[in-house]
Amino acid sequence: MSNLDALIQDLVIANRILAREEVVDAYGHVSVRHPNNPYRFLIARSLAPELVRPEDIVELDLDGQPVRDEDRHLYLERFIHAEIFAARPDVMAVVHAHAEDTLPFGIAQGTKLRPVIHSGSFIGIEVPVGDTNLLVTNMAQASDLAKCLGENSVALMRGHGFASAARSLIEVVRLSVYLPRNARALMRARQLGGEIKYLSQGEIEARNRGYSPYSVETWRT
Amino acid sequence: MSNLDALIQDLVIANRILAREEVVDAYGHVSVRHPNNPYRFLIARSLAPELVRPEDIVELDLDGQPVRDEDRHLYLERFIHAEIFAARPDVMAVVHAHAEDTLPFGIAQGTKLRPVIHSGSFIGIEVPVGDTNLLVTNMAQASDLAKCLGENSVALMRGHGFASAARSLIEVVRLSVYLPRNARALMRARQLGGEIKYLSQGEIEARNRGYSPYSVETWRT
Amino acid sequence: MSNLDALIQDLVIANRILAREEVVDAYGHVSVRHPNNPYRFLIARSLAPELVRPEDIVELDLDGQPVRDEDRHLYLERFIHAEIFAARPDVMAVVHAHAEDTLPFGIAQGTKLRPVIHSGSFIGIEVPVGDTNLLVTNMAQASDLAKCLGENSVALMRGHGFASAARSLIEVVRLSVYLPRNARALMRARQLGGEIKYLSQGEIEARNRGYSPYSVETWRT
Amino acid sequence: MSNLDALIQDLVIANRILAREEVVDAYGHVSVRHPNNPYRFLIARSLAPELVRPEDIVELDLDGQPVRDEDRHLYLERFIHAEIFAARPDVMAVVHAHAEDTLPFGIAQGTKLRPVIHSGSFIGIEVPVGDTNLLVTNMAQASDLAKCLGENSVALMRGHGFASAARSLIEVVRLSVYLPRNARALMRARQLGGEIKYLSQGEIEARNRGYSPYSVETWRT
Repeated sequence: MSNLDALIQDLVIANRILAREEVVDAYGHVSVRHPNNPYRFLIARSLAPELVRPEDIVELDLDGQPVRDEDRHLYLERFIHAEIFAARPDVMAVVHAHAEDTLPFGIAQGTKLRPVIHSGSFIGIEVPVGDTNLLVTNMAQASDLAKCLGENSVALMRGHGFASAARSLIEVVRLSVYLPRNARALMRARQLGGEIKYLSQGEIEARNRGYSPYSVETWRT
Repeated sequence: MSNLDALIQDLVIANRILAREEVVDAYGHVSVRHPNNPYRFLIARSLAPELVRPEDIVELDLDGQPVRDEDRHLYLERFIHAEIFAARPDVMAVVHAHAEDTLPFGIAQGTKLRPVIHSGSFIGIEVPVGDTNLLVTNMAQASDLAKCLGENSVALMRGHGFASAARSLIEVVRLSVYLPRNARALMRARQLGGEIKYLSQGEIEARNRGYSPYSVETWRT
Repeated sequence: MSNLDALIQDLVIANRILAREEVVDAYGHVSVRHPNNPYRFLIARSLAPELVRPEDIVELDLDGQPVRDEDRHLYLERFIHAEIFAARPDVMAVVHAHAEDTLPFGIAQGTKLRPVIHSGSFIGIEVPVGDTNLLVTNMAQASDLAKCLGENSVALMRGHGFASAARSLIEVVRLSVYLPRNARALMRARQLGGEIKYLSQGEIEARNRGYSPYSVETWRT
Repeated sequence: MSNLDALIQDLVIANRILAREEVVDAYGHVSVRHPNNPYRFLIARSLAPELVRPEDIVELDLDGQPVRDEDRHLYLERFIHAEIFAARPDVMAVVHAHAEDTLPFGIAQGTKLRPVIHSGSFIGIEVPVGDTNLLVTNMAQASDLAKCLGENSVALMRGHGFASAARSLIEVVRLSVYLPRNARALMRARQLGGEIKYLSQGEIEARNRGYSPYSVETWRT
């Protein structure tokens, strides 16, 4: 199996993991940068993530346009992926989803989404909130979102969902699975009251240094 | 397939979507105005929504009475549908349900149900709360509810559930699916504290203008 | 089918409904007074409720003792049922369960469990909380609980669960299914803040007068 | 079947119960002290708990090292188990898991995790919180955790999960199943407001005295 075929296979699996973990619904997507051409990326055509097969993966350029003739419907949200790959050469994989448990942090002004569980260290010291108050359906709006993401791993979009970016497919999947769990733990901790013990900058760095994306533990999950 | 047969088929599908999304339980219903006679509407006979088939659809007039001899049991809540179709000529489809996550907004006086997620824009600037403190089982009570709905898309009934109305079947289904999600997001945002950023009037209008009920994105869900 | 056989069949169904609705787990039970002898009642032997069949139903007297030789294990909680049937001649059916969503109202002193949804009218104006701080495993403790229930339909047992009583099997099932839903609606309403609109005494009475336990609507659920 | 084979069978069942009750996910584990050698314990190799079979159980010493040649991957968290068995000769079984509903109590400083439901009496008067802010992957860190546990039945690890210890496998399973339920009941009681009625020291002792780990009631669950 070629490098590309193997990556397409991984992308299909990533779609199914994210669907099973209920991170993505009909409007969520995962993409990966092309292994041989950094100016292209791979993403499923418009289709429920749990149904994606290798033949549903399409190759797009960094303007979000298909590089081959394509008569199947494509996600409007592909522009989000394109802009993030364009703005962040270090990023190899992107998820955009609407996970319900992250939404309150884009709506309430009282609590920032910050890591409180160890697996939440991947989200960084604090998740920025972008104010894209409409569906991101053109490159200009997607560009605003990419600016909001900046050098972070995740950005929330108020009333909409989140975009996450990482240096590998497995990391962006892991990040996207733990983001809602971290959000739930923080929401519930706020209900219990008193001071919240967030992970410190030192803890985040120590934890992320210790994390190997290809370790036995990561694959077991 | 005739226009009517196609609509009945859509109504059967609407019943199943609403059951699968847990918007309706044994006491929830969806109806659609007759395509050829605006003084009639179609609704399932008294039956769990996930079991509805085309032959379970009955045709009622705007007094809630069947237009053909009918010995099967009918929903008492059919009067709600009849009154809304009578009061609102622009409305082509109605849902009445008890979705648990909307109930707190009819009970607590401290927080109005307003849109906080983009898909919540369809509920309008604020959802009115009606005080029909008994089962709505006759036309007089149903008429009070229709008055509470007024020109809105949704009205809550305190301690009971909600009624939603839209210009097409797909829109009323979508509205009814996103209403509980919007309610959950707002409840959780309130737990996080601080100011709540609701969708503004401008955002609601821009979003609803941009929404096409027959777009690829809508059908994908 | 005799009167008794029919009632045993209903009791089996009641066990399965309560299990499917997650009102009872391995420690919850439903019982019904014997149709021909008011000093006896019927309850399943010690067994997961979703597995109960007619041959698992045993007949006990009002001391909680089997009226026939019995070598199968019996619930210790049968004394709760016995004491309620003894204390309340009007009661024909009893449920004792640990439904998680009712527990907080026995633990927090700040909010009484009162009806806020229409189907919650059956619980009465307010649910008393008993302080049986150990498993109720003998008649003396069960007697304390029956006193706490008094003339009410439901009593909470702090840190333990609830006991409910009604004039028919279908009513006690309905009451026990709606009790946790009412509890959830009230918990969430409290999160939203502001004054809570409980059902008034008048509303409770009007609603309960209007309720017919053998109506089409009740059976549909 | 030998004593050892029977215990291995029980350990397999314990893995499956904890997986089905969603106490453990891919990163949770249960172990039991060897019945014939108190300096050894049994635990599954690195594998999803719901898939564990008798041949997946390995025997480790109190340094966390396998006593036979082993080329299968082992849990890094085995050091936690080893240190607890070493520090606590009275402990026969250990669970380490990440149950989501316990996490908030390690993050929020406002509410200690204390028993509020009867089945929560096993957790003791108050659950200590350890501050192992990294994965516990070596004996030194695991030793800190064992110190935090002290003479308690459960310790929380901030942002990570919990470790529980008991004098038998069935007790540690029961404790680990009821810990998240107790956590949920307390979280919700805090939402309702007012004073919280925790189990008193007297109630905890009375309840734990009355509890027989091999009673009919325990096996029924």
